[in-house]
Amino acid sequence: MIGEDSLNLHKKLGGKLTIASKLPLSSKRLLSLLYTPGVASSVEAIARKKELVYQLTVKGNTVAVVTDATAVLGFGRLSPEAALPVMEGKCLLFKELAGIDAFPLCLKTGSWQETVKVIRSISPVFAAINLEDIAAPDCFHIEKNLQDLGIPVVHDDQHATAIAVLAGLLNATKIVTKDLKKCKITVCGAGAAGNAVIRLLKDYGCRNLIAVDSRGIISKFRPDLDDYKKILSDITNSEQIRGKLETAVEGSDILVGVSKKELFSTDLIGSMNKKAIVFALANPEPEISRKEALKGGAAVYASGSSEDTNQINNALIFPGLFRGLLDGRRKKISSQLKIKTAMNVAARVKKPVAGKFMPSVLDKKLVEIIAGTVN
Amino acid sequence: MIGEDSLNLHKKLGGKLTIASKLPLSSKRLLSLLYTPGVASSVEAIARKKELVYQLTVKGNTVAVVTDATAVLGFGRLSPEAALPVMEGKCLLFKELAGIDAFPLCLKTGSWQETVKVIRSISPVFAAINLEDIAAPDCFHIEKNLQDLGIPVVHDDQHATAIAVLAGLLNATKIVTKDLKKCKITVCGAGAAGNAVIRLLKDYGCRNLIAVDSRGIISKFRPDLDDYKKILSDITNSEQIRGKLETAVEGSDILVGVSKKELFSTDLIGSMNKKAIVFALANPEPEISRKEALKGGAAVYASGSSEDTNQINNALIFPGLFRGLLDGRRKKISSQLKIKTAMNVAARVKKPVAGKFMPSVLDKKLVEIIAGTVN
Repeated sequence: MIGEDSLNLHKKLGGKLTIASKLPLSSKRLLSLLYTPGVASSVEAIARKKELVYQLTVKGNTVAVVTDATAVLGFGRLSPEAALPVMEGKCLLFKELAGIDAFPLCLKTGSWQETVKVIRSISPVFAAINLEDIAAPDCFHIEKNLQDLGIPVVHDDQHATAIAVLAGLLNATKIVTKDLKKCKITVCGAGAAGNAVIRLLKDYGCRNLIAVDSRGIISKFRPDLDDYKKILSDITNSEQIRGKLETAVEGSDILVGVSKKELFSTDLIGSMNKKAIVFALANPEPEISRKEALKGGAAVYASGSSEDTNQINNALIFPGLFRGLLDGRRKKISSQLKIKTAMNVAARVKKPVAGKFMPSVLDKKLVEIIAGTVN
Repeated sequence: MIGEDSLNLHKKLGGKLTIASKLPLSSKRLLSLLYTPGVASSVEAIARKKELVYQLTVKGNTVAVVTDATAVLGFGRLSPEAALPVMEGKCLLFKELAGIDAFPLCLKTGSWQETVKVIRSISPVFAAINLEDIAAPDCFHIEKNLQDLGIPVVHDDQHATAIAVLAGLLNATKIVTKDLKKCKITVCGAGAAGNAVIRLLKDYGCRNLIAVDSRGIISKFRPDLDDYKKILSDITNSEQIRGKLETAVEGSDILVGVSKKELFSTDLIGSMNKKAIVFALANPEPEISRKEALKGGAAVYASGSSEDTNQINNALIFPGLFRGLLDGRRKKISSQLKIKTAMNVAARVKKPVAGKFMPSVLDKKLVEIIAGTVN
């Protein structure tokens, strides 16, 4: 139903964005000022002092939303064209929530090295690069290899998701009166989001973490781990238990899904500790529905969908995060700043209850709060 | 004066373009429709049938204005950042004159081969690529090597300029009652624009053409010609005369400058045939001012500046040209279609006189006429 309505709306709009002139071209005089010959003065000014590009052009407020279409929503690898509706949606959120001019770029590239090269080449026009829907481990390589670009390069599926999850857990544990740092936490999914969530929870002080991927619990016994999953085996699963998802989830206080739809059964939730917290964040469909999770005994539930009252999605974070990066001309965001941001996001809900413990994605004050924290 | 006013306007605007959402994000329902989970339906639709990207996304009406910053206005090679004000101006014209959403990309690339690769990579989001301010001969290589991209790739500094010059000459020769095909024509400048102008004039039927570059008249005796200038030596200068600009211009009916400022003296114009036509199209400053050209005896004068009553600039042509390419889903424009376009542009001025023989860049009806011709 929502799918059909959405498709019809997309057909009607023929693209969700438009590029507009800030001034109507109402006279020949304006043509001379905005184009040739007048424009030469701005060209010369920037040629003399590159920094002026931030004052005289769109650069200062423009972000590229870049994907290689290797992890589009929950679909995995698709054609770059098929990723465009998501990237446009993201650009729309950037503009509507944070006043940022964002442009979608869906790259046809054959390797992460090529993606890095293309992003370097297009960077002069942008104040920041938002990496989007790129599969692990390429997303890690790409982000890491672009940190010297001179503008922030942020894979917000990692960092914004991690901040949103931490904010959600801060409030959810208040509701069930548990100490987050002492909770047993299972994170199902060790891709871009899972990796970042685990690292941030570790930095926050959580000690009892277990990571699970499609092949089971991540431990040092696994011979198939890439470098990024090896790091997870170092910082999680201190007892180095082995087994499947079920083994990890049993007795957990918290289960965070950043994996794929319908992976969690009611019975799985039933095996958790009392007052269980379940975040089923797979998109567009969650690992388990609210109804089934509550049936299984969950005390607190959230998903990544806009349909949910408690939406935990990077969309809560990235508009403010980039607004802050742009306003403060910051190049990076540290782990400590991410934690502070999560705390401020959590504090936006004065009295968290199971029915409402997350702020709304449409809350513009939230954007200000995050931007102010990051800036 | 105009330079200072323009710089101040650029400072005030902080970029000439803005990216806007077509719908305000006024409700959570709209968030669900435009972003996750609703957006998945458009993603799936395009994944099944790629062609739908033209209906469901911005692609169908979006053009990339791409430069490598090797020939910015008359300045030559600059930093990609310094080229951005020009590219933004071009995007502004696209939108204001032809309703096309155009986005500026100033590439940091090290070779034409790399530029080709980057343009291939970014192409999924665009309906056409407008190459801009790229030096010869790289501009020829880049355009040629992208003709298989599935969308039009047009270096309008070549093709739109050539169409504008032919249109101008059609009307200018009416004013002086000469037969264009029989005129002796000297083209000063054998870069992107000069090359395209000469080829189109040749295709139109002009037989007495001489090309001059910074080293003098182009002839088969020159050992220093690249492949593209060799072609010019084949189709021009049938008597294979040698010498400098002055030798070529003497006795010419028409002098077209697509070179650099202040290259033509009053005496040079004085050496031309009676009822001389002078197009001084260097930007931002012409090869000779109107005043000096008339003093030298020119009967008809035009420059490329927006300040001139007779502006001969690719801006007359490219909005309609791309509108037609997009509307008709054409991939190329043939030489015959360029000539037809030039004739229709010329015919837009009912009674051409020396004081006014070119239509205005701001004439929206002209855009319609060109689009209708190309479509």
